[in-house]
Amino acid sequence: MGPRSRTLELFYDVLSPYSWLAFEILCRYKNIWNVDLQLRPSLISGIMKDSGNQPPAMLPRKAAYMKDDIKLLRQFLQVPIHFPKEFASVVLEKGSLTAMRFLTSVKLEHPEMLEKVSRELWLRIWSRDEDITEPQSILAAAEKAGMSTAQARGLLERVSTPQVKNQLRETTEAACKHGAFGLPITVAHLDDTTHMLFGSDRMELLAHVLGEKWMGPVPPVGNARL
Amino acid sequence: MGPRSRTLELFYDVLSPYSWLAFEILCRYKNIWNVDLQLRPSLISGIMKDSGNQPPAMLPRKAAYMKDDIKLLRQFLQVPIHFPKEFASVVLEKGSLTAMRFLTSVKLEHPEMLEKVSRELWLRIWSRDEDITEPQSILAAAEKAGMSTAQARGLLERVSTPQVKNQLRETTEAACKHGAFGLPITVAHLDDTTHMLFGSDRMELLAHVLGEKWMGPVPPVGNARL
Repeated sequence: MGPRSRTLELFYDVLSPYSWLAFEILCRYKNIWNVDLQLRPSLISGIMKDSGNQPPAMLPRKAAYMKDDIKLLRQFLQVPIHFPKEFASVVLEKGSLTAMRFLTSVKLEHPEMLEKVSRELWLRIWSRDEDITEPQSILAAAEKAGMSTAQARGLLERVSTPQVKNQLRETTEAACKHGAFGLPITVAHLDDTTHMLFGSDRMELLAHVLGEKWMGPVPPVGNARL
Repeated sequence: MGPRSRTLELFYDVLSPYSWLAFEILCRYKNIWNVDLQLRPSLISGIMKDSGNQPPAMLPRKAAYMKDDIKLLRQFLQVPIHFPKEFASVVLEKGSLTAMRFLTSVKLEHPEMLEKVSRELWLRIWSRDEDITEPQSILAAAEKAGMSTAQARGLLERVSTPQVKNQLRETTEAACKHGAFGLPITVAHLDDTTHMLFGSDRMELLAHVLGEKWMGPVPPVGNARL
């Protein structure tokens, strides 16, 4: 029997801290579980609007909890995540439209770079408390990920094209069709069923659904089926 | 070196399905981890009001997700949880005031029975879709848990006393002081720190915080330190 084809779609926005956590766990496990991980840059503000949901941090007690939660998860998940100082301004006001269009442009033109560029944007906003809205910020992330300046500029020029705008809108709509009311969501396509899992805390359940072994959020290296 | 004294407080309401899941996982692990598990019956409606939060199922897309999520978790966690048919009426309208006062009365008079009676109430509302608001329903749960009819009636008579009412109010206020915006919350008191963890999906993180081993939601029996 040949290997089963199993696809995981991760819908995410770099504005969402729990998206980063899910992203890192899935990037660690994709070879171990031998799954086809498809990264889907989406717009969280569009999903909130479409579902009628509110960002959790709008409720003061949830915002306070998130800070403690993320501090504990940083250590446990070994992801260098830190709350930005001006959370309301950075996350609720500035948003991520250009950044997510840029990632969409990367996905269309250089999909092999999408994981690295996404990570560099998260490292800016959710680790070093740096801007991700200015062109210079996005170019800096792309270059850190290994792109040439010319390549990054070319992708940035494309963010206002209908192709890129429509693609981001379509991906966001696809997340909504899967039932998203926030991000991240992981959509697991198995032989005969599809499961949508919300958040970064359903990864052990995902392993169960896949029939794979969960070895914690930081699986030992060397377990990949090469 | 003697065993460290580590206390976990579980604040819960039988109206909350994720409270049941957290409760069963902690009941399985309390001897394995050698922790003092203190059950704290609380009123979720009071916590929602005090924090300004809304029950997740008020948002249609969250309600739809919860149904799928609980179906998957039922199998994975091996807890026979099922959504009540008339969810809005059972959970959002009828509520749990008398049931939680009854559990408070059990905790005050027969704390050794609290785990079993709580479980029987969950089995009624969240497994067999049976009422938990009528006196007969509550008495039936108490008797299934092993109480005599006379004992159960005595406790039920006490639910309208100031002692019981005040105790439930105080426990609910204590949850709010720990930052609750819903239930369950688990408050871990360690040597020099206290952590509040929200929901049923932070149990692997709890193991990490305690320095204990996580063996999945259904740990093998026989691991208890006897």
